[in-house]
Amino acid sequence: MMNRHKNTAEKMIKSALRAVDPYYLIMDQLKLEGDILVIQNREKINLAEFKRIFVIGAGKGAAPMALAIEELLGHRINAGAINVKYGHGQDLKKIRLMEAAHPILDENTLKNTRQMLEIIDQARQNDLVIVLITGGGSALLELLPEGITLQDLAILNQLLLSSGAAIDEINTIRKHLSLIKGGQLAKRIAPARTLSLILSDVIGDPLQSIASGPAAPDTSTFAQAVDIISKYRLENKISVKIKAYFKKGLRGEIPDTPDANDAVFKLTANYIIGNNALALNTLKHDAEQSGYKTVLLTDRVQGEAREIAKLLAGIIKSGVQSGFPVSSPGCILLGGEPTVTLSGDGKGGRNQEITLAVLQELAECKSEFYFCSFGTDGTDGPTDAAGAWIDEQTITKVYERKLCVSDYLQRNDSYHFFKQIDQLIATGPTRTNVMDLIFCLY
Amino acid sequence: MMNRHKNTAEKMIKSALRAVDPYYLIMDQLKLEGDILVIQNREKINLAEFKRIFVIGAGKGAAPMALAIEELLGHRINAGAINVKYGHGQDLKKIRLMEAAHPILDENTLKNTRQMLEIIDQARQNDLVIVLITGGGSALLELLPEGITLQDLAILNQLLLSSGAAIDEINTIRKHLSLIKGGQLAKRIAPARTLSLILSDVIGDPLQSIASGPAAPDTSTFAQAVDIISKYRLENKISVKIKAYFKKGLRGEIPDTPDANDAVFKLTANYIIGNNALALNTLKHDAEQSGYKTVLLTDRVQGEAREIAKLLAGIIKSGVQSGFPVSSPGCILLGGEPTVTLSGDGKGGRNQEITLAVLQELAECKSEFYFCSFGTDGTDGPTDAAGAWIDEQTITKVYERKLCVSDYLQRNDSYHFFKQIDQLIATGPTRTNVMDLIFCLY
Repeated sequence: MMNRHKNTAEKMIKSALRAVDPYYLIMDQLKLEGDILVIQNREKINLAEFKRIFVIGAGKGAAPMALAIEELLGHRINAGAINVKYGHGQDLKKIRLMEAAHPILDENTLKNTRQMLEIIDQARQNDLVIVLITGGGSALLELLPEGITLQDLAILNQLLLSSGAAIDEINTIRKHLSLIKGGQLAKRIAPARTLSLILSDVIGDPLQSIASGPAAPDTSTFAQAVDIISKYRLENKISVKIKAYFKKGLRGEIPDTPDANDAVFKLTANYIIGNNALALNTLKHDAEQSGYKTVLLTDRVQGEAREIAKLLAGIIKSGVQSGFPVSSPGCILLGGEPTVTLSGDGKGGRNQEITLAVLQELAECKSEFYFCSFGTDGTDGPTDAAGAWIDEQTITKVYERKLCVSDYLQRNDSYHFFKQIDQLIATGPTRTNVMDLIFCLY
Repeated sequence: MMNRHKNTAEKMIKSALRAVDPYYLIMDQLKLEGDILVIQNREKINLAEFKRIFVIGAGKGAAPMALAIEELLGHRINAGAINVKYGHGQDLKKIRLMEAAHPILDENTLKNTRQMLEIIDQARQNDLVIVLITGGGSALLELLPEGITLQDLAILNQLLLSSGAAIDEINTIRKHLSLIKGGQLAKRIAPARTLSLILSDVIGDPLQSIASGPAAPDTSTFAQAVDIISKYRLENKISVKIKAYFKKGLRGEIPDTPDANDAVFKLTANYIIGNNALALNTLKHDAEQSGYKTVLLTDRVQGEAREIAKLLAGIIKSGVQSGFPVSSPGCILLGGEPTVTLSGDGKGGRNQEITLAVLQELAECKSEFYFCSFGTDGTDGPTDAAGAWIDEQTITKVYERKLCVSDYLQRNDSYHFFKQIDQLIATGPTRTNVMDLIFCLY
C-alpha cells in the first residue's frame, strides 16, 4: 500500500527545485517595464540611464541565469560571457558560453576569466555590468597576480588544508592571492555600475563568501594573510613568488581588498535572488496547502549527519507520539549542509547518511511517515543520487531483507543501502544549488 | 547591563524544577476525597476496598515521594520502607527510610530490598502495595538469585560493558539475573494490587526501562539472555554459577519475566507522574506567560552534545535573523539527554559542553539572547554544577579575557570555562531527575 505522504512529498520536492531554478528565479523576480528593470522588493533601475549593458557570470547555475537575462533584456545587452562547469552549459544567443573545471580550477578558468575581463574593461561610467553568481563561482572566476601559477596555488591549497587553518583563514589567504575575489571585481568594473545577482549556496548567505564575494565588501587584509601564514609556520613552505607578492601587499604596493567604506560599493548592488530559505518556504507552503501543520526549524543545518539524525528522529518521534513540535498531520522542515566524517570505505553522501541514521533511530516507529534529505544540486557526495527517502514501510523492508542498518552506517555505505531497496532520490543535475533540504511528513 | 531575558530564564528554571519535584508531583496529581484516591486523568481507587496499604520505593527521588504519600494517606498506611541513595533521605514518619550506594550497588541495597520484600510478602488479596519509582531505582532495588553475589554481578557488568553489547542486550541479561526487575516485583506482590507511581528519567518513558521496570511487562527471555552471552562469546568468561542459573532458566525451572499477557498486569497499574515533557511544558507555559512565542522541539534529545549544538545554534540564528522557527521574542525548548564522547582530560558535563559548543557557533551573534542547558537532578557529569548559561554578553567577555572556546571544547573542559566567567548553573541536588532541559530566549 502506498504511503499516504509519499505522493505529496514527491510533488513538494519538484516544486521546491522549480522555485530555486536559476532561470525561474530571474524570471520571477526581475521584470522589465518599458525602460525600468524592476527587481522585486529591491530596486527599480532605469536602463535608459545606461549607455551599455554587459553581462558576465560564473558558477554551476550561471547558464540558466544567463538565458533568463537574455530573454529579459534581449538586444539591450551589448556583450556578455559566462563560465560554467563542464557539461553545465546550454544554448545562449547573445552571451558567450564558456566551460572550465570544477571544483579544482584549470587553465580554462583563467582563460575564460580573461575573456570576461575584456568585456568589462570596456565598461565606462554610465555603463551597467550585470554579474551572475552561483555556487562554484569561486573556482570558475579567477585572475591570479602576475607570475603566480595554478601550480603555486595548488601547492598553497594543499599546505593550507593540512595546516589545520580554519576555513575563514584559508579564504583570507585565497582572496589576497586573487585579483577578482573579495570585491576586486567590482573595483575593476567601476566607474561602471555593478548589479550582482546571486544564488546562495552558503549557510547564512554571507555575500563575502558566496563565490568568494567578487562584488562584495571584504574585511580581511594582507596583514591578516601574512599573520595566518606565520601562525601556521608556512613562511618557508610557500613559494618565493607568493611570499614576495604578500610582502608587496603588506607594503601597500598592491591595493588591499575593498572594505564596506570603499566608494565602489556606492556603485554596486548585490542581491540574493535564491537561497535555501526560499526552497524551504516553498516546501512549507506546499505542505500547508496539502493540509499539514508545519514547523520550519532552520536554514542553517550544520554538524555531523548521524548526530543530527538522532536529534531529528527525536523530533519526529515526539511529533508523532506527543504532538510537539506539531501534531499529525505535521511537517518538519530544515535545510543547510550537514557533514560526514568518513570512517568506512563505503559509498554515500551526507543526505543519504542522515536518512539512514534517521531510519536507525525510527526502527520502532509504526506510524505512517515520510522522511527525505537531498541536495538541491542533484548530487550527494560521490554518487549519482541527490539523496534518499524512507517511510514506515522501509522498516518492514529492512527486517524482511535482513539488512543491518548500523553496519551500513558504520561503513558509510548509505548509497548501496538505498540503491538495493530502490529509495534513492535521483533528480539528475539540476543546475542550481541552495544546499540541502530535509523534511518529514507524518 | 542586564540581559533582558536572564531574569525570565531564571524564574523559568525554578518553576520547571518545582514542577518535577517528586513531592509536588504526588501532591498535585493525587487527591484523597473521602475513601477515594483520585489519580489525576488516570484512575479513581476506592481505598475502602483494600484491607491494608503498604508502600515501598527506590530511587534518588523516592524520599520526597514517600513524604507526600505519607501526608496524603497518613494513618491508612500499614507499613512502608524505601531505599534511596546515600544523602538523599529526609525525615519520614510512617515509612522507613533506608540508604545505599548508587550507581554501583552495595550490600545495603540487597539488605534494604529484603526489608521491603518482608513488607510486601505480608500483602494478600485485597491489599494495596504502592511502589514509588524514580531514576536510580535499578541499583537501589535488587534481589539476586540464590548463590549469585555482588561480585559475580560486578564481573559480569564489566564483561558486558567491554563486549560491545548494546544497552538493550545488557538489560536483558541483567533482568534475568534479578528476582525484582522486569515485572518480577509485581509478580511477588500479587495477588495484592500494585500501584506504581513513576518519575521517568528515560527517553520516551518506556516502563520496562525505568528502574528496570519492576512492575512492568517484559518482552525479553532467558533464551535471549543466553543468546547474547554466546553472541559476545562470554560463555567461558562468566561465573559458573551464573551459567548454571541461566541454564535452569532455559529449562523452564525458573519462571521467566512476565510479558504483557501475564495475568499479574490486571492487578498492576504503572503511572508516569513526572517526566521531561512535563518540565518542558512548564517552561513553555512560563515563557508564553512572559510574552514569548514558543517552539517545543522535542523531549527526546539524543546524540553527541557538540554536534547537536551546531544544529541548535543554527535554529537560534535563523530564529533571531529570519524568524523561523519563531520570531523574536521567541523561545526554543527541548529536552532529553545528549552524550559526550570524551577526547580531552578536562572537567565538564553534557550540559556544560552543549552550552560551550553553542557559544562557539554564536560567536558572531549580536542580538540579545539567553541560552542554557542543565540536568534536572542538579548534576552534570562529575561536577558540582547542573549546567551552564550564555548570553550575547558572554561573547564580549570571552573576547576581553582572550578565552579560546575551541580549546576548552577540545579538552572537554567546559566546567573550568564557565566557572571562571561565573556562568555555571548550580542548583544543588534536586532529588528529582527527568533528564536535561535546554532552552533559548531571544
